[in-house]
Amino acid sequence: MTQEEEKVRATHIPFGDQRDAPFYGRDIVSVRQFTDDDLTYIFDVAHEMQQMVARIGAFDLLKGKLLANLFYEPSTRTSSSFTAAMERLGGSVIPINEVTYSSVSKGESLPDTVRSLEAYADVIVLRHPEKGATALAAQYTKKPIINAGDGVGEHPTQALLDLFTILEELGEVDGLTVTMVGDLKYGRTVHSLARLLSRYDVTLNYVSPDILRMPESIVAEIENGGTPQIVHTNLDDVIADSDVVYVTRVQKERFENPADYDAVSGAYVITPETMKVAKDRMALLHPLPRVNEISIDVDDDPRAAYFRQMEYGMYVRMALLALVLGKA
Amino acid sequence: MTQEEEKVRATHIPFGDQRDAPFYGRDIVSVRQFTDDDLTYIFDVAHEMQQMVARIGAFDLLKGKLLANLFYEPSTRTSSSFTAAMERLGGSVIPINEVTYSSVSKGESLPDTVRSLEAYADVIVLRHPEKGATALAAQYTKKPIINAGDGVGEHPTQALLDLFTILEELGEVDGLTVTMVGDLKYGRTVHSLARLLSRYDVTLNYVSPDILRMPESIVAEIENGGTPQIVHTNLDDVIADSDVVYVTRVQKERFENPADYDAVSGAYVITPETMKVAKDRMALLHPLPRVNEISIDVDDDPRAAYFRQMEYGMYVRMALLALVLGKA
Amino acid sequence: MTQEEEKVRATHIPFGDQRDAPFYGRDIVSVRQFTDDDLTYIFDVAHEMQQMVARIGAFDLLKGKLLANLFYEPSTRTSSSFTAAMERLGGSVIPINEVTYSSVSKGESLPDTVRSLEAYADVIVLRHPEKGATALAAQYTKKPIINAGDGVGEHPTQALLDLFTILEELGEVDGLTVTMVGDLKYGRTVHSLARLLSRYDVTLNYVSPDILRMPESIVAEIENGGTPQIVHTNLDDVIADSDVVYVTRVQKERFENPADYDAVSGAYVITPETMKVAKDRMALLHPLPRVNEISIDVDDDPRAAYFRQMEYGMYVRMALLALVLGKA
Repeated sequence: MTQEEEKVRATHIPFGDQRDAPFYGRDIVSVRQFTDDDLTYIFDVAHEMQQMVARIGAFDLLKGKLLANLFYEPSTRTSSSFTAAMERLGGSVIPINEVTYSSVSKGESLPDTVRSLEAYADVIVLRHPEKGATALAAQYTKKPIINAGDGVGEHPTQALLDLFTILEELGEVDGLTVTMVGDLKYGRTVHSLARLLSRYDVTLNYVSPDILRMPESIVAEIENGGTPQIVHTNLDDVIADSDVVYVTRVQKERFENPADYDAVSGAYVITPETMKVAKDRMALLHPLPRVNEISIDVDDDPRAAYFRQMEYGMYVRMALLALVLGKA
Repeated sequence: MTQEEEKVRATHIPFGDQRDAPFYGRDIVSVRQFTDDDLTYIFDVAHEMQQMVARIGAFDLLKGKLLANLFYEPSTRTSSSFTAAMERLGGSVIPINEVTYSSVSKGESLPDTVRSLEAYADVIVLRHPEKGATALAAQYTKKPIINAGDGVGEHPTQALLDLFTILEELGEVDGLTVTMVGDLKYGRTVHSLARLLSRYDVTLNYVSPDILRMPESIVAEIENGGTPQIVHTNLDDVIADSDVVYVTRVQKERFENPADYDAVSGAYVITPETMKVAKDRMALLHPLPRVNEISIDVDDDPRAAYFRQMEYGMYVRMALLALVLGKA
Repeated sequence: MTQEEEKVRATHIPFGDQRDAPFYGRDIVSVRQFTDDDLTYIFDVAHEMQQMVARIGAFDLLKGKLLANLFYEPSTRTSSSFTAAMERLGGSVIPINEVTYSSVSKGESLPDTVRSLEAYADVIVLRHPEKGATALAAQYTKKPIINAGDGVGEHPTQALLDLFTILEELGEVDGLTVTMVGDLKYGRTVHSLARLLSRYDVTLNYVSPDILRMPESIVAEIENGGTPQIVHTNLDDVIADSDVVYVTRVQKERFENPADYDAVSGAYVITPETMKVAKDRMALLHPLPRVNEISIDVDDDPRAAYFRQMEYGMYVRMALLALVLGKA
């Protein structure tokens, strides 16, 4: 077997119903549920999805499968990404965007809604404002359910796509210095990403205003695993050494005194000047939507990866849908 | 021919365009339009749909056909059910959920909307707050139109799915004692179901608070046909003899005096205690959404059929869509 | 080769990916972008689409292609038309109807939204309340984008479908007298249509209340090209000579004094009496929705083409989608 053949074999994913596949019928609730091997497998499948889309656009892997896209709060971006993922695999979508979140006394309970929907759909994607909603719902349905964000809880597909973006842009995760910038206190995405990254051999820089620092609980959790974490308030100190800069928005509403916001916000804006100091080979990420924390003058910089990040997200979701339906 | 072959032949529905099929191009407006043979035929096709879904999930019977899902008022459950039915048959859906019902002076008339949509779609499903809306709309379009609820009028696909559920759960309708519980005055579903059941050899029990009794007009109509109807205020009197218990919600708002509600509401809640008295072979139905009129502790009882009822609904709607498009 | 064969060959459009096709990857922003040959080509393809739908309903020309249907303001009719067009070609739709138009300071900018969506979709349809929105968005995406109305700007697919309707109903455009009736000042559709028609050998009649006359700028533009334009206030003067009557709604809100509206509005209502005076072979058009400016008693007149106009719109949009995706 030639090296080329070996490589093809290693990345080849036989298409067909694999009920003994490791993810068949599983729920995607939290990034904590995955082993390191799981992550490798998901990213291998996502990479394969990317190549299939590049080659032929769409294919009929999930033809005849139905996704119930159940959104209790609007999220055009995430909803569209799952819709695109399902449709590119030949499946269909039941969009349920108009669910008003209402107390049990007035409307139907989440378990009842989910038990009803499983009558129609093969897989359920759930966005819900309450932490733990997906875990609760998963107890009531035999069909696989995927967490698309549950309030201050988790948004595992976002964390996976962030990591997949780093992997695809830079080829590896081990050895990297990853700098997180902006609101590290309230940003659900940076919390999940930091946890995921701490499984690898990385150095984490946290750059934020004092009042928006990474929560102590997360810092402690990651420290236990031995990952170096360094706190900064000035991006200039670390930009030149960063392989990844992950930017999040600093919201004015977080500050009691607007003057405090004005004093710090500019320090976390990425401009072409910032990028001049950055490495030639690095990746600038942002979960989007972006307001002004990255200047639009940076968009055409080849290191600006945030729009490609959207696309990687579609591949990760294609992979997850195919996996839980036993088709990858 | 073996018995097995005979059975296969009896239930086999040749797939293809049958323009001489009995339902081709017909509107589904009211349960009154169906002959007994029609019902048998619809349920045979629905049963076939169920078996096809169990075997292969989805199929391309309606590939290339478009359904306009026209909802003038929100009904996530019914809308999703038709969407799933169409997509499981390989067809596509044009969702029109954001129609605001408005007077002719401000917006477009229903006939104009329907005449416009028939330019795009092969079949129209209509939900409208006004009684008679589907019958009106049907006069203006040559494409088949299906009533998905027209205010206090009818909701024929709900009545059909209720009856199909009884048939599938218990194997037959003749000889059954069917007990309807809760709000029998305002419940559109129990009115249509009682009418449909009166075509069979059944006994009907009505269990409700005095102020929410089955309307005299319906009782008189059914009495003319000779179906025994017995009025009760206490579920305990009839639960042990019931083959079907069909529960609907008693809404607090129906009572002038909240104390009256509190006095009676508990008497119509189904609990595991209630089910201990019920027959071993019976079916507990509910049109959903359920609030607390059936305890969630009952959900795992094999006689609790209300979530399966959702699924039967999809098969009935698949059958109707296929029939009016001449494909079953 | 027989004449019949020659005709078939002339109108035959080979299906397949034609990356060297004239429209491949192009944006549809304005009617001004088309050469006369472009128009002929688009209408040839639209005609072919019509014949394909009549013969087989739908086909898989755009199977695997995704359309992002991005509507910043509601337009059920246009949105449904593009959805139907894409689905009849075997493609899929990502519906994005719930975008709230918001300032850059609060939400995501249009360029960012478009750059995100191009990660998911193969083609973008954009409806936006601001003039120039599509042209702006087109600068930021490599995927083809189609203008579905940008405020007081353009609505090119409406103008194309209006012209295609005339062509299909009457067989030719040259030599026709086209009368536009109603609100010619604010009606975006009549402005675009007048511009398009002025490329042909036509006579244009403008019939409107004084305060709703065709804007001078458009009259001047068309006069430069040599097209005869005649202004009337009375429809009776021109109805007998018109090959096309294009009616638009006169809105009461345009008048400062309601009495002025009452005085003129009746003069622009098409009734069966009006149609008695009209030619035997002519076409009555309306962009819809219609309120009372065409009596419903006219709807069954064979010359009433406004509902067929909707259908022609679907064929034009099928043609445009196929063309920009290199498949026609």
